[in-house]
Amino acid sequence: MDTITAYKSHLTEIAKLGSALSLLGWDQHTHMPKKGVAFRSQVIGKLTKMRFELSVSDELGSAIDELEGRDDLSDLERGSVRRVGKDFRRQKAVPPEFVEEFAVARSNAQAAWAKAREASNFGDFEPHLEKMVGFARRLAEYYGYDDHPYDALLEGFEPGMTCAELRRIIEPLREQLVPFLARLMKEGTRPDASALEGTFELETQRRLARRALETIGYDFDAGALDDVAHPFTTTIGPGDVRVTNRYADLHLGPGFFAALHEGGHALYNQGMGDDLFALGLANGSSNGIHESQSRMIENQVGRSLPFWTFFQPILAEHFPQFAQVRPETLHGAANIVEPSLIRVEADEVTYNFHIMLRFEIEAGLIDGSIAVSDLPRLWNDGMERYLGVTPPNDALGVLQDVHWSMGAFGYFPSYMLGNLYAAQMLTTLRKDVPNLDELIRSGEFGRLLSWLRKNVHQHGAAYEPKELIERITGDPFDASHFVRYVTEKYSRIYRL
Amino acid sequence: MDTITAYKSHLTEIAKLGSALSLLGWDQHTHMPKKGVAFRSQVIGKLTKMRFELSVSDELGSAIDELEGRDDLSDLERGSVRRVGKDFRRQKAVPPEFVEEFAVARSNAQAAWAKAREASNFGDFEPHLEKMVGFARRLAEYYGYDDHPYDALLEGFEPGMTCAELRRIIEPLREQLVPFLARLMKEGTRPDASALEGTFELETQRRLARRALETIGYDFDAGALDDVAHPFTTTIGPGDVRVTNRYADLHLGPGFFAALHEGGHALYNQGMGDDLFALGLANGSSNGIHESQSRMIENQVGRSLPFWTFFQPILAEHFPQFAQVRPETLHGAANIVEPSLIRVEADEVTYNFHIMLRFEIEAGLIDGSIAVSDLPRLWNDGMERYLGVTPPNDALGVLQDVHWSMGAFGYFPSYMLGNLYAAQMLTTLRKDVPNLDELIRSGEFGRLLSWLRKNVHQHGAAYEPKELIERITGDPFDASHFVRYVTEKYSRIYRL
Repeated sequence: MDTITAYKSHLTEIAKLGSALSLLGWDQHTHMPKKGVAFRSQVIGKLTKMRFELSVSDELGSAIDELEGRDDLSDLERGSVRRVGKDFRRQKAVPPEFVEEFAVARSNAQAAWAKAREASNFGDFEPHLEKMVGFARRLAEYYGYDDHPYDALLEGFEPGMTCAELRRIIEPLREQLVPFLARLMKEGTRPDASALEGTFELETQRRLARRALETIGYDFDAGALDDVAHPFTTTIGPGDVRVTNRYADLHLGPGFFAALHEGGHALYNQGMGDDLFALGLANGSSNGIHESQSRMIENQVGRSLPFWTFFQPILAEHFPQFAQVRPETLHGAANIVEPSLIRVEADEVTYNFHIMLRFEIEAGLIDGSIAVSDLPRLWNDGMERYLGVTPPNDALGVLQDVHWSMGAFGYFPSYMLGNLYAAQMLTTLRKDVPNLDELIRSGEFGRLLSWLRKNVHQHGAAYEPKELIERITGDPFDASHFVRYVTEKYSRIYRL
Repeated sequence: MDTITAYKSHLTEIAKLGSALSLLGWDQHTHMPKKGVAFRSQVIGKLTKMRFELSVSDELGSAIDELEGRDDLSDLERGSVRRVGKDFRRQKAVPPEFVEEFAVARSNAQAAWAKAREASNFGDFEPHLEKMVGFARRLAEYYGYDDHPYDALLEGFEPGMTCAELRRIIEPLREQLVPFLARLMKEGTRPDASALEGTFELETQRRLARRALETIGYDFDAGALDDVAHPFTTTIGPGDVRVTNRYADLHLGPGFFAALHEGGHALYNQGMGDDLFALGLANGSSNGIHESQSRMIENQVGRSLPFWTFFQPILAEHFPQFAQVRPETLHGAANIVEPSLIRVEADEVTYNFHIMLRFEIEAGLIDGSIAVSDLPRLWNDGMERYLGVTPPNDALGVLQDVHWSMGAFGYFPSYMLGNLYAAQMLTTLRKDVPNLDELIRSGEFGRLLSWLRKNVHQHGAAYEPKELIERITGDPFDASHFVRYVTEKYSRIYRL
């Protein structure tokens, strides 16, 4: 067998274990009975270990070494060797004892975080967070970096992204968004938020979510929609990308937009060719690019007036109380801006502030310029500065997110980057498909989907985010598209 | 690590792979989208191979050798070493090339069978069946046997069972059942079959099946109920034993009794201690013993008058049209005897005849006394002889079952043995719990379940069927209990 064939066959074996692991994980959150949990962890542990061993095998290492020197590879193959090679070296750089030690400490930290959040007492979590920061700093040293240790961690979520680049992006964003938000709140006319409130039967919400997914082009012959406590999308394998969702009894928004959000993620993976599995590329380019796909479908499409013009009659079919509600009213209710305490509930305008604050804190924790003990104060100051709100307690403040208890520093920026990537893509999409709004208004989502497939989905992880954005838009990545998108949209909705 | 600890740890690793495989299989039939099928086969193939390698490893072989010589093992450990040792040697006895060749031929034979059945043409399947018989005969030689080659195949489904023993069991059964069926048909009064017919909303049938499962003691915290085309029960792991079911629109019977049937299987596995997984004993004693548990719950409990006396008001809660229907009417409709063409639709009285016919044919095919080309004739003669019906075509005759296309010779007798084991157990159960009918009439199933747990479930595969029956009943296995049960029950229902 020649090297590239052996390489692909090795990656296919990894993909098979990955498929079993994805199913075990999906089932754990959807159908597994509670008494199955203990053994399930063991099964997942075993398969994870087997997959890890395949991922760091010498056989794979020497295939990567050889293929890196070859100049007869296809674009996809080259992208694969780069991506797989990077991952291989990162995994090899970390001593197995560290991995185990980290896993144990992480498990304890997560438990401590859950208790501390319940008691709303940062002090209970502090020593664990100290440890997590320590692990993350050591991890950065193992991985290596040129400039800032945080870069080494970012790389795991957003290949090619750096601390300096994030600062360059964030500065103009903040400078324009802070005054815009203030103007919106002071001079804007807030739409009526009540249109999406009421009592909504669960089974009908499920059918509506299904219909919304079908509308955007999600393929149910290659997927499924199941109930879950915290929605996620998972790729079980080629032809099997599943969405999960949850619903609120008294508000249509959370269940509906979460379905569109997960649907956006799912379209990405459904749009990847089966051949990407044998190349280790059947993932998004990065967490941020993945998030761009979910945000585009949820916000730029799903919270647009053309969308609601098309969807209002469908909504009324499911819930007759909407028969006389104007699309403009639904659109307004879907786009309320409200500085608030909780990131996951934030709107398009305020969301990025939550991330900016977390990024500042994370970078400081990792380079040592911020002490863990200062976090509650820094958090509350930041919330006041960005959003003008002050958390009444730690649970609604610094303890709200699970990420740090998992040692996942460098993850948060992806959420913000997703918004920015999506806006920059949208600029190009609107040039390429000038009648986009018209198509959406008449329920034709095919052109949108084929544009996304061609420009984003089909490439999987072959290109890093920066390259991908430049390939698609012809311009380097920057925040101006998002600023323009968000100020235009909300100036109109809030009648500035 | 001492040998017994290493042995258990090895079996636990096998159980973990088995758990992943069970989940992959369950999902394939319940939730997997159709486009996921190709890769799923590959994933299952990989894990199956890995499990096989662990099951025939030299490490396990020498542990078995050593443990077989030890006299300080517990009963369960001794049962484990015997069972695991037998399986180990059977797997080792078959050359890997044979396994692969058989797998390919089987896959072709199944496809050919499906087409032949659709065209109702035995001739199209005949060459494939020739091959399957050939493989089965070679398999018997690899496994080895003392008396009849069929014994080697039976051992895989019914440890300790032989062709001679089956003949000993069947002869008196046939001699008494044939005239009884004739009398029933001639002199009996057939109950009204229409009580369970009507139009039954799917979702309500699901709720009713759930309620029936809860009634018999199935633990939903350690299981789940899902829709499927062909109902089955599967053990994903300790604390996770799942039931699947299907429903008919116009008849309540199939969905309801299939749920009880699968529930009986599931109670068995839910009743096994978690420690059996590390001993390779978390299965039934045999296919037949497993079937005894499903048949007992489905037929001896679920089709009894005490059951319907208790359950009629619950049925009426779900389907109000039953509010005025007497338990006796439901009981009658649930116990219609009807010589018919199709095994899976057969009633308690006629079912075993379908098996006797298949057993005669299988034994003859394996010892060479019957030629494949004679099957349609032999089949139709047998149906006439046992049941007085003649299949109008091969699809409703010799081609109706999938088993032979899978090369699974020796499987059918387990279905019959299940009925007989259950009847013999019931004799003892009635002695131990004299007020059983009264308990069932008042909806108290706890005593029944604890009896089954103590006598059957908790042992898993520690005892072979023959031993287990003698342990439970104090008597050697024979068919008289079944004959008595079935003649008494149906004499009453048919007012002989």
